[in-house]
Amino acid sequence: MSKSEIPGKVVAICGGVGGAKLALGLYRILTPEQLTVVVNTGDDFEHLGLHVSPDIDTVVYTLADLADRERGWGRANETWAFMAALKALGGEDWFNLGDADLAMHVQRTLRLKAGETLTTITSDLARRLGIAAEILPMSDDPVRTFVETDEGVLGFQRYFVGRRCEPRVERIRFDGAETARPSPRVLAALADPDVRAVVICPSNPFLSVDPILAVPGMRAAIRSTSAPVVAVTPIIGGQAVKGPTAKIMAELDIPVTALAVASHYEGLIDGFVLDDKDAADRAAFPVAVDVVPTLMQSMADREALARSVLAFAGRLEPRT
Amino acid sequence: MSKSEIPGKVVAICGGVGGAKLALGLYRILTPEQLTVVVNTGDDFEHLGLHVSPDIDTVVYTLADLADRERGWGRANETWAFMAALKALGGEDWFNLGDADLAMHVQRTLRLKAGETLTTITSDLARRLGIAAEILPMSDDPVRTFVETDEGVLGFQRYFVGRRCEPRVERIRFDGAETARPSPRVLAALADPDVRAVVICPSNPFLSVDPILAVPGMRAAIRSTSAPVVAVTPIIGGQAVKGPTAKIMAELDIPVTALAVASHYEGLIDGFVLDDKDAADRAAFPVAVDVVPTLMQSMADREALARSVLAFAGRLEPRT
Repeated sequence: MSKSEIPGKVVAICGGVGGAKLALGLYRILTPEQLTVVVNTGDDFEHLGLHVSPDIDTVVYTLADLADRERGWGRANETWAFMAALKALGGEDWFNLGDADLAMHVQRTLRLKAGETLTTITSDLARRLGIAAEILPMSDDPVRTFVETDEGVLGFQRYFVGRRCEPRVERIRFDGAETARPSPRVLAALADPDVRAVVICPSNPFLSVDPILAVPGMRAAIRSTSAPVVAVTPIIGGQAVKGPTAKIMAELDIPVTALAVASHYEGLIDGFVLDDKDAADRAAFPVAVDVVPTLMQSMADREALARSVLAFAGRLEPRT
Repeated sequence: MSKSEIPGKVVAICGGVGGAKLALGLYRILTPEQLTVVVNTGDDFEHLGLHVSPDIDTVVYTLADLADRERGWGRANETWAFMAALKALGGEDWFNLGDADLAMHVQRTLRLKAGETLTTITSDLARRLGIAAEILPMSDDPVRTFVETDEGVLGFQRYFVGRRCEPRVERIRFDGAETARPSPRVLAALADPDVRAVVICPSNPFLSVDPILAVPGMRAAIRSTSAPVVAVTPIIGGQAVKGPTAKIMAELDIPVTALAVASHYEGLIDGFVLDDKDAADRAAFPVAVDVVPTLMQSMADREALARSVLAFAGRLEPRT
């Protein structure tokens, strides 16, 4: 199937690394005009006076083929002269910012202060890096993920990077979400009659997708599209491919299963893509299930999963 | 003469590259406790949302032995990944910021926003880089040098870096100077009864030293010390060693001579250090003159000039 044979548009809902892999798969099998990626900004934070948007940067770098695949964040061939010099000056060095990566944060911060929206800035910076697909923050309003833990309340990056997800999670909250508005371009993308699928990428449901869904109007906008909404499992055989998803689910007393993820999305999704390792569980799901290999190691894996997700969506009934 | 044989304290008044060379000479022949360097901040500017203090950084890097001697600004062994990435993102790339150098600007900006003074920050960052001498901005209040030219009014860095000093200078002004206050630690250093010499380094008198002297109270504080005030010529044989001093003097209809510099400082200085190339002019000077080689190429040159400047000051009459 060549790119042009896939009809319609796709809206991908995405957090960081795991989600970005599938977003890249979609990007490679669709024309750029067919794809909109809606990205979590709950992980955003002010660091060293700079506005850092980790998930947006992961998606942008991944689609621009600038991402470091080994490290899982930041840019390939990165250098660290800034961090070394910062440490010598007594600066905060718990959060690494690469030399080239810094340009993104400096430029974003400058343009935000000049009054541009995160939507405009993200879209423009992505295009300057050669990405023709639309990458959009979920909102231009600040939403900040905080993790309530047995060590107290931690900002997301303090929990995730500073404390390496070690504290026990008691509750996750999204400060600012209740008054945030979806980015108008996200709403426009979801309202486009050409949308053929909304894909919830295999990101952490609680840390990466929930902040997006917490923005008032976002769920309704997703539900009001006539296209099927399909989620891809971030859990394979009771384990997360990467990151703290399994640990967090256990701490929140949620079974570490794909079924629990599908149940979490119940009412929002029309279909769920399950890994073939978990095929035995398929009958228990509250929605239509497609069973395929979901582990994305090679580029071919990314593209194959993207194709099968869209084919699955194509087999689902249009909504009424 | 070993370090300990030189008595008393020295206050050096200093702009960027040329001045920093002599400041380094003084630093090397004095104990750290003997030296205070008062630095021009008229060249400071906000760039990319960062507070950049070019002359402070030149002095700090020079005394910390981190400066690039060939380039004349910034750090040695610098890398430029940030600038390359910034350019790709469409950022302003007319002013180069090295990857390690960026740490200074980010950390300074962050601490200024947190309410610390430039004096405290400069002093602390210098100490973290191993400099035991005191490096002080002339003021904690913003003073901004603007150059009125035949192409209009340009901020100093726009004139100096962006336009490579090409526009014809009509007037130089120091916005904010009239309401700026000298840094309290500068006043304390000048009021110290142990001061044996105030040295005006061979920086550009009009662009680098005048902003310091334009801060109300600074001239009086310099004049009120009992120690001799000695200026070192930035002009040798009718030419500036480096930078636009000669061009600017010509454009301002000032003769490009050491005598014109000495006359510019008349009323402030007790002695003037003239290059031996200009020895023939010595009789014309309005103050005591010492004639020595002033070109600082080697480290030995820097130390030798520092020694002769202090020896000259020692031979001048104490003020009354």
